[in-house]
Amino acid sequence: MPPRHFSPEAPQPFALWLTGLPAAGKTTLASEITCRLRDLGLSVCLLDGDIMRRGLNADLGFGERDRAENIRRAAEIARLLLDSGIIVVAALISPFRAGRANAREIAGAGRFLEVFVDAPLDVCRQRDPKGLYAKAGAGQISDLTGVGSPYERPLRPELHLRSDQNTPQALADEVLRRLRDEGRL
Amino acid sequence: MPPRHFSPEAPQPFALWLTGLPAAGKTTLASEITCRLRDLGLSVCLLDGDIMRRGLNADLGFGERDRAENIRRAAEIARLLLDSGIIVVAALISPFRAGRANAREIAGAGRFLEVFVDAPLDVCRQRDPKGLYAKAGAGQISDLTGVGSPYERPLRPELHLRSDQNTPQALADEVLRRLRDEGRL
Repeated sequence: MPPRHFSPEAPQPFALWLTGLPAAGKTTLASEITCRLRDLGLSVCLLDGDIMRRGLNADLGFGERDRAENIRRAAEIARLLLDSGIIVVAALISPFRAGRANAREIAGAGRFLEVFVDAPLDVCRQRDPKGLYAKAGAGQISDLTGVGSPYERPLRPELHLRSDQNTPQALADEVLRRLRDEGRL
Repeated sequence: MPPRHFSPEAPQPFALWLTGLPAAGKTTLASEITCRLRDLGLSVCLLDGDIMRRGLNADLGFGERDRAENIRRAAEIARLLLDSGIIVVAALISPFRAGRANAREIAGAGRFLEVFVDAPLDVCRQRDPKGLYAKAGAGQISDLTGVGSPYERPLRPELHLRSDQNTPQALADEVLRRLRDEGRL
């Protein structure tokens, strides 16, 4: 039998909901946080928007209605996971305030932490690791968030992180410090 | 800080996919298995068809196409969970062989265990804890599996359990014994 990693369950599981522009660094940060929490022996599930769009949400497009459904499904899964004692780290653009408010309601307000991964549009456009901004510039994508489709900045996120001014490691430090301060770890 | 329950992660997570007629005892057995696995300190998520239909799958009906989508979504979630090292116990009627085969493919064949929770239709009809068979008899539900809609029995399930002849406790014993014998626990 393989060796085992003995692990505590989360006393009060929570969902970290990372929102931000494409290329703001959500997935990188989510992966870093997930690894750190797993290193603490916690049970964590990463819900990444891109991965979900290749599987569960492969039937959805990028119109307003489908974007809302994309978020709804992720939030419903977060609820199932939280109800099973599993911590959720979600990385989704989730551009609209109403969609994020709906996600908060579905997951359960007391355990939903909105994390704004904030980098200026110009920085995201320069990074552009998936070439999305280039495609939008060439007219091949009409509804990219930040270009052809709006991004509504969070008004009162639980955490506001400047991902253009800090490394993912430093931001993950900040998230974990905050979780500890709140007694969630 | 609340006390913690120190837990091993599953070395090779797996999905137990409980299929069977309405009222065959899937949810009861799934809950029992989930508790036992958690008592071993494992990280487990229960995916119950009824619960999912109130949340994630609230937009779906019971036609053939929506039933397939219901199963597809559950299987995609199972994949996400397994990829995060979390054991899945799914309880869904999943009446069609093609749907279950699709679920197996999505979740990953080597980690998908089809568990046929088998009780004769007459027994299920007599139990009828949710009054579904009564409603179908009164013509209020036209597409109940086993009555107005077919149930395709598994041809080669990993486990075939007779839920009319055994208690849920005895069946859970059998499931755990089998998992141990296969080196999955």
